[in-house]
Amino acid sequence: MSRGIFITLEGPDGAGKTTQIQMMKEYLESLGKTVLLTREPGGTGISEKLREILLDKENAEMSDTTEMMIYAAARAQHVAERIRPALERGEVVICDRFVDSSVAYQGYGRGLGDAVQEVNRYATAGLEPDRTFFMDLDPAIGRGRIGKGVQDRMEREKLDFHYRVYEGYLKIWQANPHRVIRLDASRSIDTIQSEIRKHLQQMLDEEEQ
Amino acid sequence: MSRGIFITLEGPDGAGKTTQIQMMKEYLESLGKTVLLTREPGGTGISEKLREILLDKENAEMSDTTEMMIYAAARAQHVAERIRPALERGEVVICDRFVDSSVAYQGYGRGLGDAVQEVNRYATAGLEPDRTFFMDLDPAIGRGRIGKGVQDRMEREKLDFHYRVYEGYLKIWQANPHRVIRLDASRSIDTIQSEIRKHLQQMLDEEEQ
Repeated sequence: MSRGIFITLEGPDGAGKTTQIQMMKEYLESLGKTVLLTREPGGTGISEKLREILLDKENAEMSDTTEMMIYAAARAQHVAERIRPALERGEVVICDRFVDSSVAYQGYGRGLGDAVQEVNRYATAGLEPDRTFFMDLDPAIGRGRIGKGVQDRMEREKLDFHYRVYEGYLKIWQANPHRVIRLDASRSIDTIQSEIRKHLQQMLDEEEQ
Repeated sequence: MSRGIFITLEGPDGAGKTTQIQMMKEYLESLGKTVLLTREPGGTGISEKLREILLDKENAEMSDTTEMMIYAAARAQHVAERIRPALERGEVVICDRFVDSSVAYQGYGRGLGDAVQEVNRYATAGLEPDRTFFMDLDPAIGRGRIGKGVQDRMEREKLDFHYRVYEGYLKIWQANPHRVIRLDASRSIDTIQSEIRKHLQQMLDEEEQ
């Protein structure tokens, strides 16, 4: 009966996800919940080996599609071996990045399009987060580029990529208004956490009804 | 203009694919064609590393979906790095097993269903063989089980699995009557090769028109 709650955090590096996740865990535990914090590749032996292939600089000739498939394979194992069992035990699972990251970075950033969503639907066997907190931060701020004047071509390309990722996140948010909560990540840590806790409280209230 | 020709061979182990492929290569080269023989994982560095993960006995907890995704990732790299470039150079590519094997073994044998076809459509970016030779052999013959009398439960389960795979191949053949040529693999090597060469000749004639 009592299925757990699956929460994900999304947004650019530097938006403060790790800090917020730690504070969420403390809060939920103070309410008597068992919390599993996880992040991809998820610490399973198989997914860590897949991650090694992704990170190995010898594999520079890897195609974008291959990369996307390896991420999906690692996610399939992470879901089967850790996330789904915890949810079946009734725990709260908080995952730092999930399918939305693949859609934003690979689908929008790299231009792989709908394939990312489709392949990941199979990888997760349809598992979707109950709630996703999108830490919204302008890519130029996230990358600390403001006020640095003229950029070289490489830096500009990188920033263009991060703007495409950002547009992807905005589209995911717009397409999933109930699941995805957009948070202005330029505010103070405590202000953001206070908003998150209101949403968590609401989820727990709904669960008890 | 001159795109190459992409041929695959399918069927159970023990049906004689390797012998037929070698003879096909000799024949096509005698006609002046450049032939690339390949088989998955395809000898690319990345796909070999993925194969190591699949074969590592330490990874016994691997989910069926993870396994399917890793095969698809290796295939994506094989297509991008070896098969597609050879076809673009106008070569004949003969591949020992391709997507049909995944559909038969994982989709039908393991019960993963349509996911296998869908995920592989993305892995190959839609590349389909021009012609597939399905070496049709009764699984009990392929596995040398005829006349051995009562089997133990493990052996029977294995044989059930191979019959599901076989049914899968028959369905693929029925669904793709133009692409898939079914060959009775219980006949002599030379008889089979002679039938294959008739089909190859026909393909080359069509190509020249």
